[in-house]
Amino acid sequence: MNDRFTISLLLDYYGPLLTDKQNDIMDLYINNDLSLKEISEITKTSRQAIYDIIKRCDKQLGIYEEKLAYMEKDQKRDSDIKVLISKIDTIKESVKDDDIYNSLKELNEYIVRTF
Amino acid sequence: MNDRFTISLLLDYYGPLLTDKQNDIMDLYINNDLSLKEISEITKTSRQAIYDIIKRCDKQLGIYEEKLAYMEKDQKRDSDIKVLISKIDTIKESVKDDDIYNSLKELNEYIVRTF
Repeated sequence: MNDRFTISLLLDYYGPLLTDKQNDIMDLYINNDLSLKEISEITKTSRQAIYDIIKRCDKQLGIYEEKLAYMEKDQKRDSDIKVLISKIDTIKESVKDDDIYNSLKELNEYIVRTF
Repeated sequence: MNDRFTISLLLDYYGPLLTDKQNDIMDLYINNDLSLKEISEITKTSRQAIYDIIKRCDKQLGIYEEKLAYMEKDQKRDSDIKVLISKIDTIKESVKDDDIYNSLKELNEYIVRTF
């Protein structure tokens, strides 16, 4: 089983591929941090069935990431963006012209807003 | 039914979620541009079954994009990257210092390579 943080991230990426019922239960378990017993009471479903659903969802989310790797790609992109911003900062520090300096500052603000 | 170009793009994004058999048939149909009759002969499967598989895959790929929208997000990102590159070009054109000019040129080359 993946840890809760990883499952929570995977749900952001692949949750839409799960059923509404699966999403509801994963939401109670992961985002509201409820116990199996509490979820069982709320959903009027046996504790064992809840456990099976969570286990199956965890596995399914892992398969989606294995096949599509969108979480991995996004994490790589985020780190590439950080490199880009630091490259622009480096250039900015050696700029003497105020207008160019401000344009590069605005450029980094644009990147943070957009990507 | 989506046009062949759209299906080809959708396959790049969500093909890994189809079965091997579905991928093989979609590859023959979309990327090798074979007719239903030709695919039917190659795969020793009835023309009707081939048609059904293609129709089902097309629908399924559309559902994946509707739910996950990774193609749409990538297209938006590509256009954001183009805007970013043109912003850097604009700054570059008003730079007088050769070193800064070259750094900005390298920055754009980095962006094209990375994103």
